[in-house]
Amino acid sequence: MAQQKEIAVMGAGLVGSLLSVYLAKEGHKVTVYERRPDMRQANIGGGRSINLALSDRGWKALAKVGADKPVRDMGIPMYGRMIHHEDGSTSYQPYGKEDQAIYSVSRGGLNQVLMDYAEQHGVELVFENGCDEVDLDSGVAHLSGGQQVHPDLLFGADGAFSRVRLSMMKTDRFDYQQMYLPHGYKELSIPAATGGGWQIEKNALHIWPRHDFMLIALPNLDGSFTCTLFAPFEGTGGFDQVTDRASLMRYFEAYFADAIPLMPDLEEDYFSNPTSSLVTVRCYPWVKHDSIALIGDASHAIVPFYGQGMNSGFEDCDVLHQCMVQHGDDWPAVLDAYQESRKPSADAIADLALQNFVEMRDRVDDPSFLYRKKLEKVLHEKYPEDFIPQYTQVTFSHIPYEKALAAGKEQEAFFTRILPKLDMEKEPDSAVADQVAEAWRTYRN
Amino acid sequence: MAQQKEIAVMGAGLVGSLLSVYLAKEGHKVTVYERRPDMRQANIGGGRSINLALSDRGWKALAKVGADKPVRDMGIPMYGRMIHHEDGSTSYQPYGKEDQAIYSVSRGGLNQVLMDYAEQHGVELVFENGCDEVDLDSGVAHLSGGQQVHPDLLFGADGAFSRVRLSMMKTDRFDYQQMYLPHGYKELSIPAATGGGWQIEKNALHIWPRHDFMLIALPNLDGSFTCTLFAPFEGTGGFDQVTDRASLMRYFEAYFADAIPLMPDLEEDYFSNPTSSLVTVRCYPWVKHDSIALIGDASHAIVPFYGQGMNSGFEDCDVLHQCMVQHGDDWPAVLDAYQESRKPSADAIADLALQNFVEMRDRVDDPSFLYRKKLEKVLHEKYPEDFIPQYTQVTFSHIPYEKALAAGKEQEAFFTRILPKLDMEKEPDSAVADQVAEAWRTYRN
Repeated sequence: MAQQKEIAVMGAGLVGSLLSVYLAKEGHKVTVYERRPDMRQANIGGGRSINLALSDRGWKALAKVGADKPVRDMGIPMYGRMIHHEDGSTSYQPYGKEDQAIYSVSRGGLNQVLMDYAEQHGVELVFENGCDEVDLDSGVAHLSGGQQVHPDLLFGADGAFSRVRLSMMKTDRFDYQQMYLPHGYKELSIPAATGGGWQIEKNALHIWPRHDFMLIALPNLDGSFTCTLFAPFEGTGGFDQVTDRASLMRYFEAYFADAIPLMPDLEEDYFSNPTSSLVTVRCYPWVKHDSIALIGDASHAIVPFYGQGMNSGFEDCDVLHQCMVQHGDDWPAVLDAYQESRKPSADAIADLALQNFVEMRDRVDDPSFLYRKKLEKVLHEKYPEDFIPQYTQVTFSHIPYEKALAAGKEQEAFFTRILPKLDMEKEPDSAVADQVAEAWRTYRN
Repeated sequence: MAQQKEIAVMGAGLVGSLLSVYLAKEGHKVTVYERRPDMRQANIGGGRSINLALSDRGWKALAKVGADKPVRDMGIPMYGRMIHHEDGSTSYQPYGKEDQAIYSVSRGGLNQVLMDYAEQHGVELVFENGCDEVDLDSGVAHLSGGQQVHPDLLFGADGAFSRVRLSMMKTDRFDYQQMYLPHGYKELSIPAATGGGWQIEKNALHIWPRHDFMLIALPNLDGSFTCTLFAPFEGTGGFDQVTDRASLMRYFEAYFADAIPLMPDLEEDYFSNPTSSLVTVRCYPWVKHDSIALIGDASHAIVPFYGQGMNSGFEDCDVLHQCMVQHGDDWPAVLDAYQESRKPSADAIADLALQNFVEMRDRVDDPSFLYRKKLEKVLHEKYPEDFIPQYTQVTFSHIPYEKALAAGKEQEAFFTRILPKLDMEKEPDSAVADQVAEAWRTYRN
């Protein structure tokens, strides 16, 4: 057992809750401070509610502390994308092999399960008492309730607008970037079918791609779907085009006509839900004075388009734990190894998430892109070691994100060269896979 | 005359002082709020004192309001770089044509002249009363003295760590980046020669380039030089190598032996002056609520290696004035045109300044680089319209920085291709210029 430390985790969100379990399991005395009330008591929402897609990295990090079991029943597997074309037709693209899926989970529900799980492991959760500021030199944290705490170690798991990070920002030589997309998002909904069940395919992530904007829908356990409209704040397809019921209906009739019958609450949802912005945050260092560290969104907030925000935050916990195993009680070494190993991964997933927005809204209904996806699938099935599609590397593997990013660039360059040489009218078969695999080996050497 | 506005300028630094003159000359009622005491009374330093190099953009912006005349006598022309090689030898590279120079000026002295000049034009300067925060919605500024002011227009000219910008940062969709170099800087000095005059060449910017670090020296009117050591915080040639007198002398003997006799106060300077960091700040938008705008370092703090920090800030005033001429009393249009026109220029000079650090510390003593510089000079003299070196575009022209940046990339690619084909042992002459000019025309078409 490690030498026991008093550890404060700022933020009882998804990453803060899971992190507290990791630390408690190593024998540390862990207190989590959360600004909001206990969502399990107050029955309030868990903040932003873009539905979450739990994938392999998240599952692995949960499983390492046994937290996957209580979560299993909450997720709905989505085996592929269901594309809703402008003419009302649909087409389906599997995400990976037959049994590979990403899992739609409710942010609030998952958070509550992790809070319960943390308490079962001896973690103390303190609510309505968030971290306002950390005096980095003394290590004293000032809480919104007025108290001060002085833990041995402090983790800022307090999200994209982290106060712990804000305290670090006031120090010299702290690199920081916040970058907004010209797009925002708004939550909408598709209720369950009359009499129960799902109005559209349950086991898929639905996308209405419209080039510069898109609508998506993720299934919930109760038969409903949580939808999100991603659109520019201004311009063609922009939120500024919609000012009243009439313009809302014109907008949906023009772009998402087939969704209208599914969305009886469209008008109320649209005008009562906020239009929120989409930010990418990068910073460095993540660690100050060998004892204060950032984790999750606080260190690397990303846009949601690769479904990796939560997964990367959970993987942070896994990587931190590996560093704890390696360096034992030498916390300066643990934290330094953690930030050095994790920063390149965080930068890579931030880039990947931005790239995948273009893929989702603009490329998924392009014929040559669809052909490439099919070809990648055949190729990967026949040569699982030689060729792993970038999507599979990010979503269904634990390959570091920076390697997946580099592999994706190589694959993009390769397919740009090879696709014009293939007969894209014909479904890619085993013979084509052999031919392309040979070209891929040559290309890489 | 324009419709009179009450305008608050936050910061009486170089840009704030010059801006206030521009605004007062258009008939506005201008008050400048400055956190520090009046440096003309208190005889204190003007903050950071990397010596400044005033070049064409700065002169033009000063001249437009007649402020060049009081500044003329303060500057020492530097017609080129004097390179101090490791073996103690020196070589000289002219910056441009024979009469082209950048001017070494004292930051404090220039600032005082501009403050006087502003007061002569009816500007009110308020000292020891800086802007702490701006309530962007109401337009009310909270001053460090406790008062509040509510001007019609407010300019944040409050530097790299601007409080006006900090208020903007708290709003949604504000893009922001602060990025530190791994290098810091420390001010040192070379006193005047015994009996007066300059110990080393007066009319040059002196550089001791040592690849990853360098020492520079700029002349002062009194015969002294202000020196700056730029070095990594850690590692080879790093500040961490120097901890006491003995290690300081070892450091200077190893890298700057020929400078030691020039610097009798080296030890005292080194250990009493701070080691400061070098930051690049980018942000957007620069304007909020059609009435609150950032200018100078507050909107684009850059590293000092192209000598364009002040010059770009002065050019901001010039560009703003062009927008005032174009849009008259329509301030929302003025400010929007200003930020849209100026943001690409600011991003470009930030990149150029970072690039020029590599040039100064690592390339200026490389033989092929020296040959290229000579070739560019011959080429520009013979074909002044067809070929303008990037350095000349940035320093001796008013070509927008983004065009100079693009031109520099094109020139770099061209010379990488053409240099191996030339006889670099031979001084480039008129015949070589003809040959290269022909290749340049072909390359560009």
